Amino acid sequence: MSYQNVKSTFVLGGARSGKSRFAENLAIDSGLERHYIATGRAWDDEMRARIATHKHDRGTLWTTHEQPIALTDTLMRLDAPGRVVLVDCLTLWLTNLMMEEASDIAAESAALAALLPRLSASIILVSNEVGLGIVPDNKMAREFRDHAGRLHQMIAANVAEVYFVAAGLPLKMKG
Amino acid sequence: MSYQNVKSTFVLGGARSGKSRFAENLAIDSGLERHYIATGRAWDDEMRARIATHKHDRGTLWTTHEQPIALTDTLMRLDAPGRVVLVDCLTLWLTNLMMEEASDIAAESAALAALLPRLSASIILVSNEVGLGIVPDNKMAREFRDHAGRLHQMIAANVAEVYFVAAGLPLKMKG
Amino acid sequence: MSYQNVKSTFVLGGARSGKSRFAENLAIDSGLERHYIATGRAWDDEMRARIATHKHDRGTLWTTHEQPIALTDTLMRLDAPGRVVLVDCLTLWLTNLMMEEASDIAAESAALAALLPRLSASIILVSNEVGLGIVPDNKMAREFRDHAGRLHQMIAANVAEVYFVAAGLPLKMKG
Repeated sequence: MSYQNVKSTFVLGGARSGKSRFAENLAIDSGLERHYIATGRAWDDEMRARIATHKHDRGTLWTTHEQPIALTDTLMRLDAPGRVVLVDCLTLWLTNLMMEEASDIAAESAALAALLPRLSASIILVSNEVGLGIVPDNKMAREFRDHAGRLHQMIAANVAEVYFVAAGLPLKMKG
Repeated sequence: MSYQNVKSTFVLGGARSGKSRFAENLAIDSGLERHYIATGRAWDDEMRARIATHKHDRGTLWTTHEQPIALTDTLMRLDAPGRVVLVDCLTLWLTNLMMEEASDIAAESAALAALLPRLSASIILVSNEVGLGIVPDNKMAREFRDHAGRLHQMIAANVAEVYFVAAGLPLKMKG
Repeated sequence: MSYQNVKSTFVLGGARSGKSRFAENLAIDSGLERHYIATGRAWDDEMRARIATHKHDRGTLWTTHEQPIALTDTLMRLDAPGRVVLVDCLTLWLTNLMMEEASDIAAESAALAALLPRLSASIILVSNEVGLGIVPDNKMAREFRDHAGRLHQMIAANVAEVYFVAAGLPLKMKG
């Protein structure tokens, strides 16, 4: 496996699975200059509290970039050798895209996936697996599940390593 | 492991996990004459669109059999050496059985599982894991989850290979 | 790995995944005196039927202790070398704690996890993974998911072996 290949990692897991912590430790262990792209929008108190807790838990050795929509552009802008860029998380990014009526989610997903092998920075992408419960009653939730599943397949195909995290434990699916 | 045993495969995964694509590739790689049993009922436009997309994506080298209920009978009828029969998917079959008030789902599930080791064709069964979310509010969804989980256990016990698919990546659970 | 360490096991899985059966077989295979802590409360007919079915399926070679809340105390009381204590399941215990307004779930979870490495009995804990579906609409379900995920991480960090069970098949995550 080439040096280039080993630098992109996809971390998939459930809610409170420890996936963010695992991804942060991967970034720390890399020894690279750490950048964090937070895709979550603080649109209510519950969300604001979660974001603040996460930021506090990460400590001060990260540069945090809040970017709910223009993820691909931000990755290009931040790209540089010697850096690790952690994106947490793709499902919040998808949620934000779905709120923007004009966005073409399939095209945005494909553009993100296609960018990954061309970056010089180490990239770690975190996402929530949401497709293992009962089919949701409402159509928007079903569409969200579909978008997330398709995005996850594209990302997994374009990174060197994929981990599934449950109960804080990583299971290597690829790499 | 005997030749007979290695021919039956169960592919379990979430929504948009890539499980159908993975199963189709297993069938293609077998080099056998390909049959496809579609259990989904086109009862609304969303479902009709999903079925049409799947059929188009498979291309023309498959014989497709639409069979929402009589799955076990259809497998017996199609059974022949030199064939691979892909069933997509068991959760839609269960949904259809639940709509039929007279059906005994436990008995139907047991009959399907018991048939598998006696077939001469290679069989690939695809199903959705639906039991890894929050307990659903409504009783029918909980019953569906129970039926699906019990069926999956019976199928897994009666096939040679079981894969769990997430983000397009297979994880071998048995075989 | 020390003798002490190999005696604690965490079995995580979905609804009807076969996780309880797998855990019971681990206990039976241990050859130890078998104790069973049932955390479920028979608060309606559906639940009562599930509990009765489980109890019947286990047979008579178990001592059953019904304990919806004071799980940590009960584990301390039952602790003795030569015993295996199976707890089924942690998510029902969490549900019961959430019904008690006074309970501090984070503290209770931490106390349970911290106790595990100090016990002389073999301990097998069963729990439902509930975090792999769509984000639930209601806040209590989201809080439950968060509590469960955090508890699972703490338990997994404090036991010797962790299994994820799907379709009746165990996947070893740790140990």
